[in-house]
Amino acid sequence: MDISKTLRDESKSLSAAFNAAPVQLAGHGKREVRVLKEAFAGAGDHVASDMYGAGEVIEEFQAEMAEVLGKEAAVFFPSGTMAQQIALRIWSDRKGSRRVAYHPLCHLEIHEQDGLKELHHLQPLLLADKDRLITLEDVQNMGAGIACLLLELPQREIGGQLPEYAELEAISAYCRGQGIMLHLDGARLFEALPYYGKTAAEVCSLFDSVYISFYKGIGGIAGAVLAGSADFTGESKIWKRRHGGDLISLYPYIIPSRYYYQQRVDKMGQYYTDAKELAERFNACHKVVTLPEVPVSNMFHVHFALPREQVEPALITVSEETGVGFTPRLKETGEFSCAYELNIGDLYSSIPKAKLEAAFGLLDRLLKEA
Amino acid sequence: MDISKTLRDESKSLSAAFNAAPVQLAGHGKREVRVLKEAFAGAGDHVASDMYGAGEVIEEFQAEMAEVLGKEAAVFFPSGTMAQQIALRIWSDRKGSRRVAYHPLCHLEIHEQDGLKELHHLQPLLLADKDRLITLEDVQNMGAGIACLLLELPQREIGGQLPEYAELEAISAYCRGQGIMLHLDGARLFEALPYYGKTAAEVCSLFDSVYISFYKGIGGIAGAVLAGSADFTGESKIWKRRHGGDLISLYPYIIPSRYYYQQRVDKMGQYYTDAKELAERFNACHKVVTLPEVPVSNMFHVHFALPREQVEPALITVSEETGVGFTPRLKETGEFSCAYELNIGDLYSSIPKAKLEAAFGLLDRLLKEA
Repeated sequence: MDISKTLRDESKSLSAAFNAAPVQLAGHGKREVRVLKEAFAGAGDHVASDMYGAGEVIEEFQAEMAEVLGKEAAVFFPSGTMAQQIALRIWSDRKGSRRVAYHPLCHLEIHEQDGLKELHHLQPLLLADKDRLITLEDVQNMGAGIACLLLELPQREIGGQLPEYAELEAISAYCRGQGIMLHLDGARLFEALPYYGKTAAEVCSLFDSVYISFYKGIGGIAGAVLAGSADFTGESKIWKRRHGGDLISLYPYIIPSRYYYQQRVDKMGQYYTDAKELAERFNACHKVVTLPEVPVSNMFHVHFALPREQVEPALITVSEETGVGFTPRLKETGEFSCAYELNIGDLYSSIPKAKLEAAFGLLDRLLKEA
Repeated sequence: MDISKTLRDESKSLSAAFNAAPVQLAGHGKREVRVLKEAFAGAGDHVASDMYGAGEVIEEFQAEMAEVLGKEAAVFFPSGTMAQQIALRIWSDRKGSRRVAYHPLCHLEIHEQDGLKELHHLQPLLLADKDRLITLEDVQNMGAGIACLLLELPQREIGGQLPEYAELEAISAYCRGQGIMLHLDGARLFEALPYYGKTAAEVCSLFDSVYISFYKGIGGIAGAVLAGSADFTGESKIWKRRHGGDLISLYPYIIPSRYYYQQRVDKMGQYYTDAKELAERFNACHKVVTLPEVPVSNMFHVHFALPREQVEPALITVSEETGVGFTPRLKETGEFSCAYELNIGDLYSSIPKAKLEAAFGLLDRLLKEA
């Protein structure tokens, strides 16, 4: 093996070029210790830890989030994986049915090592095709015996698409009529609000339970909230203990969640506008389309009609020559195509327009020639 | 209701008196934000977060703990509740038996809302009586079909008792001979080492898997490590994801765990010596005995042969008059008795002897007259 060549290849990798670029298109910046230190800089030394779910630091934030989401109560969880399995389990137990329904690319189906099946023995029905949203018709055709339907807003794995609000209302009304519980995977709920022009509480009023995350658009360290009626959240605390999530101290996640929530919840409109502008820049390039073509939140997917081996050197060149990093990695989506996911955060709006034009101008030329 | 009386009662509560006392007998100090800030003061701003179990900050600490415990590999978990259920599940699956064995006051039996049964459907056999340790004879009489035996060292709920090391070796040899997996609940393993005069790796060599905690004697914020063979820990990572414990970032617990481990692991001998001295002071008082009478770790239980309503005012008076806080709460153990648990940490050795003598002298007089 030629070590010097390996080193050259390493230094030429997309990930290395991205990390070395002085400017990144997406996100809020690197996930590093600074993020925690900034959140704690204003927290008093003698603020008491939460203790197994009790104490001001957790109870106040839970009450605040319950109000924001328009629900009776909320519980802070270390992860959405834990919170959502538990939500579906509670509704399943109450309805006396192990059958739940969700999208084929739901987080529970593809990112959780089948925890829902292995720990809770629930049987998910996969609604809709992988590449489109769940429709009212899908829901009407689910068949009998579904305890709970989970909807993810926006649907991340297809670029963050959203159903029209009227369709969402119709699905909610149908489920209520049929006694089917409706759970919201709102990992990116705040990011979806500017498109809908609704408050979080308005959207959540269509659902019986809701999960939100604090490290997507909010940019915290980790953590989630599960909200619903007080009896639902009370039961969720028992399951949180069973899962091993009722930690003696969750404040290392709660204080940053609250800090970054306050910093960023009002910036979601800006991120959405920025995402639409950035998607236009991509769509103006040869052999590039975004999904959705016009974003409906702060996120979209970038699809290249070229094999990964041809896109990587183009993105490396753009990084090195213009100082703009696009992505650390590309996913092969076929023999002659690749893609990546992009979430707009604080960084985009601070990039000078001239720099963006230089970067996209060069990218377009390189892809056209490729 | 007489509100002014309630307020007076509140200010006279044991918990309030304890918190107001300038000196506390047990522990390392209050659980508050300062604990996190101190641990992060020396951490560089640009230290990268772990990402879903990968990255230097988690991998280096796991490797360090694997070496300390003499095991092939180790995995950092948010909680021991999660780590231990998973350990028992893995051994149960491998042995093809749902039956495991542990002490009747095992953490999994009394503090976890039956997660082991509700999530993993394991069937625990409760060995020994509640008020004594598991013996070799108990283990020999378990009957066939036990996949895994869990031993807790020291056995917290009976004051932190330890079996003699020869008995531990005999139990381990018996289990190996019978093909029974042996798991160590080592929440307080480091605290037990001075009594045994053994290293952590020596004790762990008797076990197939081991869990340790970072917020007992070590005094971190939260977090646990599960160690064993590489195939065992590899499987545990899959279950960690299923439980919702494979967080995007665990560094808010890992960095403090490492920091306080380095600060305190060598102080366990001091805590043990202090615990023996302090137990002597309690045992010299009227109507007080400690369990064990002579501690074998940094912990013991304090039992009063008086009803809680008589002990509380005595402890409040001692706090107010001498400035020494004993405990924020007492547990009723019978109609005429109560008790509490005590864990020696950094605080005890800094209390002037004269202050201790004043506090115990007054306590003895008050209890004698009660």
